[in-house]
Amino acid sequence: MMQSFIPPNRTLMGPGPSDVPERVLQAMARPTIGHLDPAFGGMMEQLKAMLRDGFMTENQLTFPVSAPGSAGMETCFANLVEPGDEVIVCINGVFGGRMKENVERMGGTAIVVENAWGAPVDPTLVEAAFAANPKVNLLAFVHAETSTGVRSDAKALCEIAHQHDALALVDAVTSLGGIELRVDAWGIDAIYSGSQKCLSCPPGLSPVSFSDAAAKRIAARKTKVRSWFLDLSLVMAYWQGDGARTYHHTAPVNAMYGLHESLLMLHEEGLQNAWARHADMHQLLKTGLEELGLRFVVEEPYRLPQLNAVAFPDSLKDEASIRRELLEVHNLEIGAGLGALAGKVWRIGLMGASASEANVDLCLTALRDVMARHQAI
Amino acid sequence: MMQSFIPPNRTLMGPGPSDVPERVLQAMARPTIGHLDPAFGGMMEQLKAMLRDGFMTENQLTFPVSAPGSAGMETCFANLVEPGDEVIVCINGVFGGRMKENVERMGGTAIVVENAWGAPVDPTLVEAAFAANPKVNLLAFVHAETSTGVRSDAKALCEIAHQHDALALVDAVTSLGGIELRVDAWGIDAIYSGSQKCLSCPPGLSPVSFSDAAAKRIAARKTKVRSWFLDLSLVMAYWQGDGARTYHHTAPVNAMYGLHESLLMLHEEGLQNAWARHADMHQLLKTGLEELGLRFVVEEPYRLPQLNAVAFPDSLKDEASIRRELLEVHNLEIGAGLGALAGKVWRIGLMGASASEANVDLCLTALRDVMARHQAI
Repeated sequence: MMQSFIPPNRTLMGPGPSDVPERVLQAMARPTIGHLDPAFGGMMEQLKAMLRDGFMTENQLTFPVSAPGSAGMETCFANLVEPGDEVIVCINGVFGGRMKENVERMGGTAIVVENAWGAPVDPTLVEAAFAANPKVNLLAFVHAETSTGVRSDAKALCEIAHQHDALALVDAVTSLGGIELRVDAWGIDAIYSGSQKCLSCPPGLSPVSFSDAAAKRIAARKTKVRSWFLDLSLVMAYWQGDGARTYHHTAPVNAMYGLHESLLMLHEEGLQNAWARHADMHQLLKTGLEELGLRFVVEEPYRLPQLNAVAFPDSLKDEASIRRELLEVHNLEIGAGLGALAGKVWRIGLMGASASEANVDLCLTALRDVMARHQAI
Repeated sequence: MMQSFIPPNRTLMGPGPSDVPERVLQAMARPTIGHLDPAFGGMMEQLKAMLRDGFMTENQLTFPVSAPGSAGMETCFANLVEPGDEVIVCINGVFGGRMKENVERMGGTAIVVENAWGAPVDPTLVEAAFAANPKVNLLAFVHAETSTGVRSDAKALCEIAHQHDALALVDAVTSLGGIELRVDAWGIDAIYSGSQKCLSCPPGLSPVSFSDAAAKRIAARKTKVRSWFLDLSLVMAYWQGDGARTYHHTAPVNAMYGLHESLLMLHEEGLQNAWARHADMHQLLKTGLEELGLRFVVEEPYRLPQLNAVAFPDSLKDEASIRRELLEVHNLEIGAGLGALAGKVWRIGLMGASASEANVDLCLTALRDVMARHQAI
């Protein structure tokens, strides 16, 4: 029997999506208009301006890709990598591994710099990889690894790339809006994020930005991009702001209403205030988790406030059944481990609107309840 | 000054998006839940079942791609074409040309069968192309050309493909839900559509379906798909229904609520009733347009009821300014010509909820008003 889907009311404290404010949900329910309507064009210009503020960049080439974060990643690699290119890819979790796949599918060769899951990217290893591979023209790394909760030093890594005449490509899916991120000041050449993390918008859009150096390299490509949908030379005919906006694909109109509203909320709060709120809520959660005897996977200086990975305690048995109970009894979603950390950790998100005192309280209360019950069994 | 975006209330009678019913908009505003939430999994199963009904197929591999129609197109080509493959691509409008780009970017060779813009694909030319190119293993064509308003004979073209041991790949972006479309009965092997046409959902999702023969060919690929995001061997780990659903990318949760609701509305109306409604509204519009002296671009037997392309009359001057007036004075969007037809035609859509008597009346009244004013000037 088919019927309307009425979702349960969850509190979202996993690795994303995060809680979506009612304002953003209501924005998405406004009447659909055409993707070429002049009124829509005005909204697009505001959206680009607010994205530039969020990324702290003046880059002209800044807009949301019409698909989730994985497509933002693919936009960066598809446009910047040509067959035969050598790319240094830093892997310290799931998403670095995905970057390697992207390089290879675009015909490039990935030179992998590996660090332990839970550790940040070690700049000395990146330096060594550049020294050993003088042909490399691109460095790719994850700023905030969602699979482990670790922050790497994006500024230092970008500097190394530029010293070797390479561009720097950064995964900021989990960092945008949650922690310090300065695209221009740090010299990031290509960056992608997601709508459903610290921006607190539903999933489906992927903000990206490209420096002038990246735009120049794309314009000088010898081969066509291995994607028509993500080819920036075509996509930008739609996103340009000079009034000559032309059709490429049909933009996800209502999803963009939502992202516009969530960026407006960030704009109203102030970017640095949002960073501070994420840091404060992390401290509150950390104290409570430690009282519960939970141990962080990542060493303190590298921890992401918005993604708290804690080891699943030996004293408990079945981590999946505990998560299921949190969901069913407390309507609380927290994240499982991914890849090498599957079954070993929980990932507790404090992203965007989910980074609130009420959420921290709910999470600690629910964990205390469920863990006590399972320890007793 | 940044502020919430309040879109104008348009009547959408262009080539898509079409009018979105309030029920669908409200569904999109329901609380976001996790893309791996068991409750979401149940919704996904219903969504797949209703998509199968809409496509008239039993194909297991039926789901919405997490991005607009262009990404659905790319999903089909990226998975079915390998470097060195020869593909017959039929071009009789903008979207056939886009198919050729897709083949080439995946490393294949496109053998083009050209027909005039406004004419359907000629099966005898396709037959001849197969005879001249025995290595071809895929035929690609557009069922309902949105750029011209023409319908090609999908059943006949699929038969030719199968006689030559090739698979048939069909663009049904504008046909799904609006005109007769029978994936299994006609032997379509791969098909993609869009959410924003005859399904009357906002843009952003692209329903696709693959036959067992297509799935077998994908499983036997010698090279990796040139896209990580669209690689079906990975995507299906998320869309499979056996309870072992695993993370690939973060699905656009609220957009999927919307598509679920719009498919439910189609289910309630009945697929064949929806086809009949599109045909009826087309007759009504046709009578009125002819009274206004407007001439159809496509010959009657090949006309799409849901996309009415009419020649811009010689007696008028500036077609763009008339469309602007329709938008500004009557809040009515109709479509401009694309590609070879730019500046020469209007495209009037009767898709999904836009295929109503009220919309036909509004469109005819507004056109009469604006045309009279411009003829008088």
